[in-house]
Parts: sequence; C-alpha cells; structure tokens
Amino acid sequence: MQADNASTTLPSTPHSATLLIHCQDRQGLVSRITDFIARNNGNIIYLDQHVDAQKQVFFMRVEWELESFAIPAADIADQFRQELAEPLAMHWQLHFSDETPRMAVFVSKLPHCLFDILARCQSGEWNIDVPLIVSNHPDLKPIADRFGIDYYVLPITPNNKQEQEAEQRALLARYNIDFVVLARYMQILSPEFIDHYPERIINIHHSFLPAFPGAKPYHSAYARGVKIIGATSHYVTSELDAGPIIAQDVVHVSHRDSVEDLVRKGRDLEKLVLARAIWNHTQRKILSYDNRTVIFD
Amino acid sequence: MQADNASTTLPSTPHSATLLIHCQDRQGLVSRITDFIARNNGNIIYLDQHVDAQKQVFFMRVEWELESFAIPAADIADQFRQELAEPLAMHWQLHFSDETPRMAVFVSKLPHCLFDILARCQSGEWNIDVPLIVSNHPDLKPIADRFGIDYYVLPITPNNKQEQEAEQRALLARYNIDFVVLARYMQILSPEFIDHYPERIINIHHSFLPAFPGAKPYHSAYARGVKIIGATSHYVTSELDAGPIIAQDVVHVSHRDSVEDLVRKGRDLEKLVLARAIWNHTQRKILSYDNRTVIFD
Amino acid sequence: MQADNASTTLPSTPHSATLLIHCQDRQGLVSRITDFIARNNGNIIYLDQHVDAQKQVFFMRVEWELESFAIPAADIADQFRQELAEPLAMHWQLHFSDETPRMAVFVSKLPHCLFDILARCQSGEWNIDVPLIVSNHPDLKPIADRFGIDYYVLPITPNNKQEQEAEQRALLARYNIDFVVLARYMQILSPEFIDHYPERIINIHHSFLPAFPGAKPYHSAYARGVKIIGATSHYVTSELDAGPIIAQDVVHVSHRDSVEDLVRKGRDLEKLVLARAIWNHTQRKILSYDNRTVIFD
Amino acid sequence: MQADNASTTLPSTPHSATLLIHCQDRQGLVSRITDFIARNNGNIIYLDQHVDAQKQVFFMRVEWELESFAIPAADIADQFRQELAEPLAMHWQLHFSDETPRMAVFVSKLPHCLFDILARCQSGEWNIDVPLIVSNHPDLKPIADRFGIDYYVLPITPNNKQEQEAEQRALLARYNIDFVVLARYMQILSPEFIDHYPERIINIHHSFLPAFPGAKPYHSAYARGVKIIGATSHYVTSELDAGPIIAQDVVHVSHRDSVEDLVRKGRDLEKLVLARAIWNHTQRKILSYDNRTVIFD
Repeated sequence: MQADNASTTLPSTPHSATLLIHCQDRQGLVSRITDFIARNNGNIIYLDQHVDAQKQVFFMRVEWELESFAIPAADIADQFRQELAEPLAMHWQLHFSDETPRMAVFVSKLPHCLFDILARCQSGEWNIDVPLIVSNHPDLKPIADRFGIDYYVLPITPNNKQEQEAEQRALLARYNIDFVVLARYMQILSPEFIDHYPERIINIHHSFLPAFPGAKPYHSAYARGVKIIGATSHYVTSELDAGPIIAQDVVHVSHRDSVEDLVRKGRDLEKLVLARAIWNHTQRKILSYDNRTVIFD
Repeated sequence: MQADNASTTLPSTPHSATLLIHCQDRQGLVSRITDFIARNNGNIIYLDQHVDAQKQVFFMRVEWELESFAIPAADIADQFRQELAEPLAMHWQLHFSDETPRMAVFVSKLPHCLFDILARCQSGEWNIDVPLIVSNHPDLKPIADRFGIDYYVLPITPNNKQEQEAEQRALLARYNIDFVVLARYMQILSPEFIDHYPERIINIHHSFLPAFPGAKPYHSAYARGVKIIGATSHYVTSELDAGPIIAQDVVHVSHRDSVEDLVRKGRDLEKLVLARAIWNHTQRKILSYDNRTVIFD
Repeated sequence: MQADNASTTLPSTPHSATLLIHCQDRQGLVSRITDFIARNNGNIIYLDQHVDAQKQVFFMRVEWELESFAIPAADIADQFRQELAEPLAMHWQLHFSDETPRMAVFVSKLPHCLFDILARCQSGEWNIDVPLIVSNHPDLKPIADRFGIDYYVLPITPNNKQEQEAEQRALLARYNIDFVVLARYMQILSPEFIDHYPERIINIHHSFLPAFPGAKPYHSAYARGVKIIGATSHYVTSELDAGPIIAQDVVHVSHRDSVEDLVRKGRDLEKLVLARAIWNHTQRKILSYDNRTVIFD
Repeated sequence: MQADNASTTLPSTPHSATLLIHCQDRQGLVSRITDFIARNNGNIIYLDQHVDAQKQVFFMRVEWELESFAIPAADIADQFRQELAEPLAMHWQLHFSDETPRMAVFVSKLPHCLFDILARCQSGEWNIDVPLIVSNHPDLKPIADRFGIDYYVLPITPNNKQEQEAEQRALLARYNIDFVVLARYMQILSPEFIDHYPERIINIHHSFLPAFPGAKPYHSAYARGVKIIGATSHYVTSELDAGPIIAQDVVHVSHRDSVEDLVRKGRDLEKLVLARAIWNHTQRKILSYDNRTVIFD
C-alpha cells in the first residue's frame, strides 16, 4: 500500500534490488513474492522471512540481482505496488545496491564514537557519506576539520531549543540527509523533531537497556554492583531510551573496576554496538514493528 | 532424487512437516517449493534458505502446518519426490513434528554430559527417547540405573575393537536407535562404524577446534597460555576431530587458572555445547555439506 | 573485632586455612597480615586484596598451608583476633579447607537448576552436602527420591506463611544447614526469615538485573524487544531482587525467539550462573559490603 | 638481580611507583616486599600476586603512592636492589606513573587498527606518544599526515630485508621508541630484529591462536566451517605466531557469513584485542614467563 521510504533517485545499473516487506500474515505470501521475482528473471541472492505468530505479522527481506531482470529498475516500484503491495496491503521499501546513504552525526564532547564512524567511512569499510556534523559544543570541531566535514555548533539552552532544532532540521534538509546518528549526543530531542525522522534517528545508550536509562548509567551500574555492563543502540522515539532496540552487547566487569574503568570499557562497547546498528540500517536489514525490530542477518 | 533419511514411520495426525533440502542453485527454487506448499493449502510457519554463492548450492528448511494440508502425511514424500525432488535433483529429508528420535549415549568415566542429557530428557525439556547407554567402563552404571536406562559395558582393547563395535552396532539396531551421542566417550570409532551412521554420530570435543585436536586439550591449552578455552560439537567422520562443526562456545580464562580449573570451566562448556548440538539435530535444523554445516535458527 | 561466621567445628589436620577480611583501609595492612602468617611458618598459596578507594575499605582473601604452621588450627582464630583483628577493628572469617558445607535447596516446580545442582554434588564436582530439599509443591519429589534426599512439601498460602516459614527454619536447624539456595523457588521469603541467614541465602533470578525484576521477566524481555537476555545470582535481602549480585551472564537472542525460546535459552543461563555463585560461595571467595560483592578469583 | 627494563629517566614528582617482580617462590615474599613499602611510609594502592604452583615461581605487581614515601624516586631502584632484589634473586621492573611510553606502529595496507590506535591516543584515552609509523607500503601515509605523524615507507623484498630492518632499527633508536606495535603489518621480522626488543613488540593475529597461524586465517576458518572466529594479541618471538599471548577475543559466525563477512567482523575484533594488549602493556600489567603471560587486572 505505502512505500515507507522508497528511494527516489533511480540508479542506472544497480547490481541488486532489496525489498523489505511487512503485512498481515496469510498463506502463500512467500510463494507470490518469489514468483514475482522469478517470473521476471531475477536471481534471488538473499531471502529471509519471519512470522510473528502471536500478532500474525509477516516480515520479509529479499534481494535479487538486476542484471537480467525483465523490469527496468525505474519501474520495479510501480509494478510491485500494483501486482502485490496494494492487493495485499503491504508496507514495503525498495532499495538499490548502488545508493549511498547520507548520514549526519550529532555529538557533544566525547570523541570515541565519532572517530570510529569517520574511520570506517574514510577507509571505505562503509559506503556512507557523512557531509554534516552537528554539536552543542565546539570541542570536536578539530576532528571534523581533520576529516574535512562541515561542523555546526548549535548550543542548546532551555530557552533556545525550539529555534536550534529548527536550525538543525534546516541543515538536515540542506545537506540532503537520509538518517541521523546520535553519537553520544547529550541532548534530548523534542517529539516534533523525532516525528520528522521515524526510524531514521539512531542513538547509542551506554547501558544495557532497559536497565539504567537516562543520565549517568555507569555510575548507577557501579552503585548497583552489576557484574556485566552493556550498551544499546536503538531508534529514537519520543519516549526516552525506549525506542526499538537494534543492537546490544555487554562486557564483564568486576569489583576491581571503578566508575572510570566502566566508562573506559564501555567506550569500546558503545563504538561497536553503534557501528553494528549503522551497518544493519544502511544494509537495509532492519524492519521495525510494534517497538521491536526484526534484524535480518 | 534421494531421500537421505526420510522418516518411515508415518504419523496419524502430526502437527507439522519439515523439509530439509539442498541442491544445485538455480532461479525460482524458493518459488517452486513454496508454491507446492501453498497450492496444497499448507501454512508455512518457518522458512529459511541459504545459498552458498561460491559453490552454487541452495539450502532450505521449510516447515508448514498439516492441519488443512491437501496431501495426506503418508503421501507427501512421494508427491514431493515426483513433482520437485527428482526433476530438480534435490537431496532432501522430510520429517514430521510428532516423531520422537531415539538416541544412544556412549560414555567412558566422566558423568557431567550424561547427567545433563538425562536431566533434559527426563524433565521433558527435550522430546527424545534414550533407551540405551554404552560404555567401555562400568563407572557410570549407577547413573543409568538411577534413570532406569539399559547400560552395557563393552571394554575396548586393541585386540577386541572389531568384535566390540559389532556388538555396539547390534545394540543400536536392536534398540532401534536413530543417532548416537559421544558424551566424552574416550574411544576412537573405526571408519566402518562411522560409515554406518553418516551425520548420525555427534561428538563433543573439549577444545576450540581446530585448535588442540586429539588427547589432553586442556593440558595443551594451559601450556600454550591461551586466554580463552572452548568446546566443539561436531558430526563424527573418519578423520579424528575433523567432522562438520555444529556448535562451539568459549569461556575466558586467566593465568590464575590451573589445568584443573580449565577442566572445571570446560565441563560447563561441554555440557552446553553438546546440548545445543543435540537440540539442533533433533529439531532438524542442520544441513551438512562439504564438511560444513548450515544451522537454521 | 567480630568473627562473622568463623567455623566452630575444628579439623584435625586441614590442608589449608583461609582468612576473609574487610576493615577500614590504612597503611601496612597487607604487611602485618602476611607477616602474621610468614612468622608462624605458613606458606601462602593464595593472596588477593582489594581497596575500595572511594569508601576507604580494605578487602583481603589469604589462604595458606597448615602443614608446618606454628599455631594449631584450633588456636588460629583466637590468636588472630588478639594480634590483629581486635587492634585493627577487622571483620573477618576463618575457614578450613576440609569443611564440607551443608546446603538446603528450595524449589517450586522447575527441575533444571535442582538437577544441575544434584548432578554436580553427586558426581563429586562439588564438595557440598545436600541433605534437605524444601518445596511448596510435590512435583519434584521424584528427583529428590532418585538422589536419596529428604524432600519436604510446605505449601505457602497468604494465611500460613508465618507458620510454614517457622517450619522451614526448624528444618534448616535440624539438618544443620549452612546456607540456602533458592533454585527457582517462586515464593518471597519474609524479612524475618532473611534476617536469620545474612549472606547465606542465594537466589537465581531469570533476568539481567536490575532489568526486569519481579515476575515474568522473560515475557517482559520479549515485549521490550531486547537482543540479549540474562540471569543473575545474588544474596537475598529483604528488598526483592535487590541484594548483592554474585554472578551474571547473558545470551544473545533475536526476533526469531519466542517467549518460549527465551525460557529455553534462559534455563541454561540460570543453571550456569547459579552454579558459579554456589561455587564462589563455598570456595569462600565472596565478601559482601554495602550491597556489592568482592569476588576473589 | 637484574632490572629488566627499569626506567632511566627519573620523574620529579611522580604520583606513584609500580614494581613488577618475578622470582623463585619462597615463604614470606609478600611480607618482605610490602614491609619495604610500608616501613618507608608508602601507601599501597594496588597489590596482586600469583604463584605458579607447578613451577614454583612467584609473580607480583605492587603500586604505591609516592607522596610521603621516605625514599626519593631517584633512589628507589638502588635501595630495592640492595635490600630485596639481589638477596632474593628477583627479576624486576620499576615504573613511575608519569612516564609516557613512546610507541612505533608498523603497518601495511589495512587502516582499521592504525585508525583505532591514533584515535585513542589523540583523544587522550591513552597516555602514549606515537611519533613514528613505519610501513612497507605508502597507502596509509594520508592517515599519518592527517594525525601529523612521521611515516616512513620501507618496502621489503627478499633481497633487501636485512638493510631495511637495519633502517627500521635506526628509526626506532632515533625516535627513542619504547615498544613496537605491528598493526596488521604483513611482514615477518627477522629473529635478529626481534631479539633486540624482547617483550617489546606486540602483534595482532587475526585468528584464535593456536588455530590458523600464518597467512589467510579467515579463509582457513571459513573452509573449516568454524562457528566462532577470534583474534589474538601476543608478544612477538622468533617462532611465528607462537609468542606469549596477551589478549584474545572471539565473535560468533554462521553459515551465512562469507569470507568477506569474516574479514569484516574480524576487523572489529582485531582493533579491540590489540587495544587491550597495548593498554595492559603500557599500564605495566603484564609479566611474561615461559611463553605465558600473567596479566594483572
């Protein structure tokens, strides 16, 4: 029915196309979708599906080679909509392998996640453009300069939040940004801001959610005496630290670890977990439904 | 073409059927298989497929409900063979959800894996029958007695191996055993024995294979000063500790750990890893190809 | 100053003695304690110390061989008290290596932790006596019978809790129990009960605390869409699921896992984490302070 | 007896001193060493010891505050040598907390470990100077330039190895380098080179050693069908990939992972494991003995 965020720029000769679909479960869905591809001479190189048996929802990710595909890339969306998506009331996205997503990074003062992201992009590990960094502090500008990326300082106070967020949104539009990563950005975005980018804002929270939401989770973890700490990456929703979880990981700690040790060990976790979330997002491996994620691997 | 080990006892009203398939990859396989099920009114509750792009091999596991399926359970194998398996030269297995696999356990003197297996079966965690335990030592007979399971002592010497293995095979036949688990059985089975049970003998090796194959891996791990030890469960082939790996896991160790500590920590790993392998095997989640396994999860 | 729970039964020829000490930090503590042992010809085989720099508390575990120790085992406690513990206002415990702790297990209907505990004791992996199992249900009596252990059914209702707990405490006294393990015991003990066994009741909670305390944590974890589930073993205090944490571990899960899968995967975690806590407790490796634990390893 | 690599530049007012000691085990060692510190008014802030019971070797790390220590920093080494090290035939190192180690990084073409190291140094996470990068390829010079670090290209051929290593050693001397990190440096150093820097060259190997030593471990891991891959950091000795292991970690993989996926997942492991090794080395937490390491934590 609705193409949630189908790509609008069409590739000349993309290598492959990926469909992400969810809809009410019914018999024959896989058969009809794979038949659509096979009939048009597409060679499936990835297929995974999942059924939420409790809620009777069907999820699918299918990727196929376009080389000898009978439908031109520019027409696939239309034809899929008519033949399958509308008749079967599907939510769907269509992506092409040669798209390069454009990511903005929001930071405050901590550099580790930003450094890790930029190193991955710059070394070619990720095929992602990062044209824009936004911060409420000037501290990390030297890093942006080092990588040649525009850096805007927009300090947030209780009084100027609305205007600054308007400015942020203008920047996101001007730089043609596809999605935003909060790389230890220490400000809470307003619901209005968040509503404009559904499932397009990824946060890293430095705890094993739902344990220790909010501020100073390492201090809380220390005080509680946990033997494991974690990090959680999730899509941002208007409820703080409560959006759909994309990735989590943990590391063992002991009584020898001070709060500073937890912060140090946690940094590595944060980098890793955020990187996995960004990878899965840009590889079109995530479907979000009912505040949970399906991560196709 | 060939039903590797299709079940011969047919259920009256099984809940679901599972097909495990592998064959040369070609366009339209998923479409044709799912169409076979959908056309006959089967509701797919699990589908996963994998393509080994390098070797051009297609793997699939599909499970569907039989309640309103148009083909009687007893006829599914024949019809699938004629319509799809033979024309497409598939290797395939068909299983029904109400089968209870019959497992024999081979042990020597160490009780931890045996205890764990029997506890899982006896508490109903697993739907597996264990009618037979075979050992080269009498030590664990009290445990078998405690659980009311027949226990045979067949000591192996360099001279009697052939006869004792003949006796073991006679027992496996008499007890109608589907597969064998070597739960820290300290004897090497002959190639003849192994050939009779392809992908039906599961071993637990107490190292992170291919590191430390053969005898005394914990001593070797200690001597090498590794910081992590592991356990590996695999199908037994005629090459020692070199069969297709089903499951592996590890635990961190330190300089404080003596060989005895490694043995102690390793015991828990061995239990867990062997249990995962048995679970996956009896849930029909494993396809083995070219000495590697596909584990559908 | 106070010997928290120094052993009263004195061994004839124990192999080693262990001191667990905590007190206000000050210069020279390690030197004075190790000098006490060295001067009396004791050979230290384990020494670890920890200083909580924030709270200025000193923790130490030291174990030494008694073979040629100048002070008879029966007099060590007195002499240590006079020379060091009283002058330095220490909290301390003295243990001997030949003590066999006596453990009671409380269960409800789930067998996996009980089976695991009994298998470890029966196979000689642990040197622990389990003379007593208490339950609010008769379901697991067959397991107790199988292992030849007395099993008492004391059903708890809102009206009879006080009497039943009195009966439980009478049993613990009669069986000369050192510590209690709640192996998925589904009742909340009263503060009066708990106060009688400080740091002597070990619980296993089936979540990664402080996430998901209380009832049905696997259901909550599923609803929240976490990518990792955990288990936590802790000393029981009067605040529910909030006592000092002894051990935690986790396992990765995915959208494919139903609540039933979480329960299944969690069972293995619960067994492992509870077993580690019991091991550390009986090896005298735990010091608890300010609702946190120091685990000497 | 011998101060293996006691620091020669003496600090004016270092915060703390650290002794790393190993020697034959005997009674009273801890007592004598801690008495030396306590008697001179030093406040111990870290003490850990370990005895290799099998080989009768004693290991210790002790750190104490120098603020009111009776012996001037410049005289501690002499006095410790006379009072304890010589009489007790100790191997020992003395370090001061205000030393900043100087590290050279050797690379080939892969940037991920180099980027990670430089980000940690530049952001102040590590207190390490990196004045020198050496490579057999020019590829990573732009990264060195970006961080303002001297980068030397010394291509290695079968014929020029001896001269190039002479040049490398001249550079290490000229830049006053304390230790070398091989951050995916694809050349094998000669025994002569290695002998000059005992326990001062740290390598990252992209497998779980001793599995898959040598070239192309990810390809070997894929071919063997392992379910877990690893990375290993170790001190370099003249035997390839066989030196004392400092740190290891692993990540789960599946049949879905191609060799390229293993390479991708392995990169994150390599970064983490190498970073942990560097951290432990520069925090003076490692003692190496008999091709094993003691890592004080």
